[in-house]
Amino acid sequence: MIVDLRSDTVTTPTPEMRRAMSEAVVGDDVYGEDPTVNELQAEAARTLGFEAALFMPSGSMTNQVAIAVHTGRGEEVICAEGSHIYEWELGMMAAFSGVVPRFVPAPLGVPDPDDVRLAVRHSVHQSPSGLISLENTHNKAGGTVIPLNVMHAIRGVADAEGLPLHLDGARVFNAAAALNVDIAEVVRPFHSVSVCLSKGLGAPVGSVLLGTRDFIRRAHRYRKMLGGGMRQAGILAAAGLIALREGPARLAEDHRRTRELAVALLDAGYDVNLAAVQTNIIYVNMPEAQLQVGAWEQQGVRASALGPTSVRFVLHHQITDEHLARAIEVLTKQVPVA
Amino acid sequence: MIVDLRSDTVTTPTPEMRRAMSEAVVGDDVYGEDPTVNELQAEAARTLGFEAALFMPSGSMTNQVAIAVHTGRGEEVICAEGSHIYEWELGMMAAFSGVVPRFVPAPLGVPDPDDVRLAVRHSVHQSPSGLISLENTHNKAGGTVIPLNVMHAIRGVADAEGLPLHLDGARVFNAAAALNVDIAEVVRPFHSVSVCLSKGLGAPVGSVLLGTRDFIRRAHRYRKMLGGGMRQAGILAAAGLIALREGPARLAEDHRRTRELAVALLDAGYDVNLAAVQTNIIYVNMPEAQLQVGAWEQQGVRASALGPTSVRFVLHHQITDEHLARAIEVLTKQVPVA
Amino acid sequence: MIVDLRSDTVTTPTPEMRRAMSEAVVGDDVYGEDPTVNELQAEAARTLGFEAALFMPSGSMTNQVAIAVHTGRGEEVICAEGSHIYEWELGMMAAFSGVVPRFVPAPLGVPDPDDVRLAVRHSVHQSPSGLISLENTHNKAGGTVIPLNVMHAIRGVADAEGLPLHLDGARVFNAAAALNVDIAEVVRPFHSVSVCLSKGLGAPVGSVLLGTRDFIRRAHRYRKMLGGGMRQAGILAAAGLIALREGPARLAEDHRRTRELAVALLDAGYDVNLAAVQTNIIYVNMPEAQLQVGAWEQQGVRASALGPTSVRFVLHHQITDEHLARAIEVLTKQVPVA
Amino acid sequence: MIVDLRSDTVTTPTPEMRRAMSEAVVGDDVYGEDPTVNELQAEAARTLGFEAALFMPSGSMTNQVAIAVHTGRGEEVICAEGSHIYEWELGMMAAFSGVVPRFVPAPLGVPDPDDVRLAVRHSVHQSPSGLISLENTHNKAGGTVIPLNVMHAIRGVADAEGLPLHLDGARVFNAAAALNVDIAEVVRPFHSVSVCLSKGLGAPVGSVLLGTRDFIRRAHRYRKMLGGGMRQAGILAAAGLIALREGPARLAEDHRRTRELAVALLDAGYDVNLAAVQTNIIYVNMPEAQLQVGAWEQQGVRASALGPTSVRFVLHHQITDEHLARAIEVLTKQVPVA
Repeated sequence: MIVDLRSDTVTTPTPEMRRAMSEAVVGDDVYGEDPTVNELQAEAARTLGFEAALFMPSGSMTNQVAIAVHTGRGEEVICAEGSHIYEWELGMMAAFSGVVPRFVPAPLGVPDPDDVRLAVRHSVHQSPSGLISLENTHNKAGGTVIPLNVMHAIRGVADAEGLPLHLDGARVFNAAAALNVDIAEVVRPFHSVSVCLSKGLGAPVGSVLLGTRDFIRRAHRYRKMLGGGMRQAGILAAAGLIALREGPARLAEDHRRTRELAVALLDAGYDVNLAAVQTNIIYVNMPEAQLQVGAWEQQGVRASALGPTSVRFVLHHQITDEHLARAIEVLTKQVPVA
Repeated sequence: MIVDLRSDTVTTPTPEMRRAMSEAVVGDDVYGEDPTVNELQAEAARTLGFEAALFMPSGSMTNQVAIAVHTGRGEEVICAEGSHIYEWELGMMAAFSGVVPRFVPAPLGVPDPDDVRLAVRHSVHQSPSGLISLENTHNKAGGTVIPLNVMHAIRGVADAEGLPLHLDGARVFNAAAALNVDIAEVVRPFHSVSVCLSKGLGAPVGSVLLGTRDFIRRAHRYRKMLGGGMRQAGILAAAGLIALREGPARLAEDHRRTRELAVALLDAGYDVNLAAVQTNIIYVNMPEAQLQVGAWEQQGVRASALGPTSVRFVLHHQITDEHLARAIEVLTKQVPVA
Repeated sequence: MIVDLRSDTVTTPTPEMRRAMSEAVVGDDVYGEDPTVNELQAEAARTLGFEAALFMPSGSMTNQVAIAVHTGRGEEVICAEGSHIYEWELGMMAAFSGVVPRFVPAPLGVPDPDDVRLAVRHSVHQSPSGLISLENTHNKAGGTVIPLNVMHAIRGVADAEGLPLHLDGARVFNAAAALNVDIAEVVRPFHSVSVCLSKGLGAPVGSVLLGTRDFIRRAHRYRKMLGGGMRQAGILAAAGLIALREGPARLAEDHRRTRELAVALLDAGYDVNLAAVQTNIIYVNMPEAQLQVGAWEQQGVRASALGPTSVRFVLHHQITDEHLARAIEVLTKQVPVA
Repeated sequence: MIVDLRSDTVTTPTPEMRRAMSEAVVGDDVYGEDPTVNELQAEAARTLGFEAALFMPSGSMTNQVAIAVHTGRGEEVICAEGSHIYEWELGMMAAFSGVVPRFVPAPLGVPDPDDVRLAVRHSVHQSPSGLISLENTHNKAGGTVIPLNVMHAIRGVADAEGLPLHLDGARVFNAAAALNVDIAEVVRPFHSVSVCLSKGLGAPVGSVLLGTRDFIRRAHRYRKMLGGGMRQAGILAAAGLIALREGPARLAEDHRRTRELAVALLDAGYDVNLAAVQTNIIYVNMPEAQLQVGAWEQQGVRASALGPTSVRFVLHHQITDEHLARAIEVLTKQVPVA
């Protein structure tokens, strides 16, 4: 038995998704004629409460397109320390949009609205602020959740400063599950949202960008520039629709198992910050992370070493209780000295 | 009966492709673990005679990644007038790579090697040349073919000037069919080649970039920057493999039908340059192109109006002899005055 | 006696300019406090009939700042073939602003307004047009002049399409002298104008960008980004003021001498297109341009070889009748076989 | 009496500089023919111990050109928090070079070499490191000095990682004065250095970039792209030469007066961190910074409000002991409540 806890991106399509893909009615989406893509976009917009949506091959692309639409050259993107748009999107905000990050501290991934306000530049001798971008859940902070009131307060800052507010919502359905509120409530404070269908929701490929009709019209051009215009993309959208419809309900189970694993690790002596385990991700500090991950791999449990002393476990719908039991068995057999 | 001659991108997946997609063994390709993607890449590299290959969601992305790998900021890309990388890729060569085009004349899509040589800049007061890029077949010139000896002569210029040579080979299999030589012969003069699986070859989504192992290693980073890293992309690659294996053999038939249509149009009084009809594309000059295309659409024949006085027909494997007969019937019933 | 006809940029400051520079009242222009810079900017704005002006170290910078203010990423700049912004500004339109050129033919440097109109893109599959840019006089075409009615007609196109219209007016005072109209008349059709003080007008360093107050406010940020914010720039502005006040009146003399030289060259058998000799520039076609220029240099006459078969002569206020006579003597002594 | 302590950029040229500018032998520096520019570049290279140098209109330009030469698109520039290249150069590292900053903590402006080492990225899923850039003295930290051994240790990191090391040495002569070592010693660890002539050294305009001959050859192209090629720039270089020759010796006096002012402020109850007062800059924390600066201005003492609670004083060669006495008198008359 392989227990793959490296990421929630490693899931493979369910039989139902495979059937849907094989039967999808498709057309040329570059001409806007793929009915399954159009259905997915319409449904995503409806579910999240936006005017329009656009399907793309990855979450990096939806984020970078949003940044490009919202900003002009040489502006600053105010974001939390450790944001995915900066840490894992390879400098694309600079290379394509020509913008720099302006970081605010974010303990447990949650920025203080006052810090966001102070991060806005007003001097003509400095780079103007162009966008505020949040990440919910915040991957690098441990899949942590930004509370509703904080998001609304930051929207208040954005309004006061005349700035757009974007959400990197790669795992925003996890946030909704943790907050136990409707997804549309969670994304209401934002001008644009990027959502991944290929993480916890389980689709093989694809993300969706949401915004006003005008925003999405402009996003279209940037998607094409980045090479994200796909022809019969309905194949992927067919699986995406199932992910969007059936994925969210399963996330609470992922979170329950994640909690169980985190507690088991803590009990076994691992250095886990339980306060940060709020959804489907666990970070553990340990020496020789790479080596340790290699040792577990030998026993069928896969995790990610992110840096020399940090290991990440991510749960998802293809991790059953049986997998969980096996992971706990392997991981607690011999605990590395911290 | 709908006869869709707008583009060879409008084909829908064959039953065999649908079956392959529904049964594909997949993994997370961002981690390099999707076996079907890996198989497609290996087979494409073998078939075209390159060390390595990389699968991407579109031909625009493979071209723009190639440009990014080959060039530095502020350099010039020498290319034929009307090149797709300039005309239809939305300024991405400038917006991402920061490079400008330097055009050479290309009657019937074929640049003169001497003109290419003269286009190379050497003055420190000018933008240095960074890349020579050809397009074979050349879309805007009518799907025209660059002869082998011309490509080799331009490679000679590239070598003499120390410049890389890229091929936008979106329809390079059409060129190979027209030249009646092995595909590997056609692409031999190039340092990198971009090939579309979703045009004449019939896959729903996807293109492949080919080059040396080192080139592809660098292309990986740019693909990720552009958001082209897809998770279980094996779904698409499964169809791509069939396209790669079975698509090329069908192209001669497409070309035969294209020729028939072109002759019929010419006979009927249309302004067609038969010398430019070499593969699966026909351009016709006529007044009120947009209006005319609309009129045919009413009768089930779809074409593209490209500019106010230019109409394009493209044939592909889902255009049968029956479709062809119907198209000829509709198009020759009432010929617009030129 | 050295007769330097390489460019009108080679002039050295007059004694009057040197005195002005040594006595200039200066301040920190980055803080907007240099009174001489402010005076120059105000006077340039008044003279050319614009709301505001901004001093910069070069004409390349004023042009590229204008492009950056007017355009967004991935747009097209419609310009005449051979435009300085493309040929001699090192790909900066792409590298900084992320835009590509869209060329229109320009016999004798004058584009046809209909061609400009046809160059505007409207398809969502193409790069949107962002700016129309003219060059008057047109350097590469031979210092040729765009007539007033053509400029107004192109402004009509710009208005109809909702596009801004920029003038690369590096030598626009030469155009005004040739047209024999007030400079403000010549630049009236434009939303922004770039003017060089360091060419025919004779200042050692500097160019001025003109536009609305809002345009110049935005240009400030781009000037700073490019590193064009200079501290006590009043030193240079002091000479610039003299150039602006006294330079224009001298240009007719430069043009008279240029004409004399062109006629003498033609009479001597050189391949000169007299129709293109309209201001202070002469292009001559000849084999072995580099070699020939080297031979003249030995005899004290300097010209520029621009390409393998093209030589350029440029006259300016430090070329007297005596210099002219000497140049004619040397150049007509032995004429190279064409 | 006006005592302008806003910046060391506000100095006006000395009579000697004015005389030199009015008598400078000049030529067209775009052709490399300005003898005074060439002399300045040669002397700067000799003085700082580099192969070659290049004169530019500002320190922002020398820094951004260095970044462009050293990096490729999408890379990271490792730099201290609060670096000028990020805080005050308007996002140009992103807008032009397409690179993002990667910050390391820098108490008193001095980064820990271990933190620099940890900031280097090695994962293919992250943006590669392209450059390490230090700032000495560090403006935002208070004109603080990085010790020689720290710079050498960071060069060790750079060598181990195969990365270039750049110095933003806008005020590196102040560092040399504070360290009491030869300037060439201070800059020895670096592959390239940017030095301002227009700050403490007193020239009206200009900065110099230093590096190997090959580095400077490449910098030439980027300078031209940015519009930094100036024609008879020898006018400015003439003053720059005097600044380079005579400026450094005066800095110790500036530092002595700065210390006196800082102690006086501290004694008077201001919130000054004396440990950070190492050269010619003093930062003071106070409420209502803008208001306070306005009040002093009424009495002839000018300072800069940098943010809502921070005031900066900068001394320079045009601040005499008499000015100092006056500043202390005004500033200590009525101390704002912290």
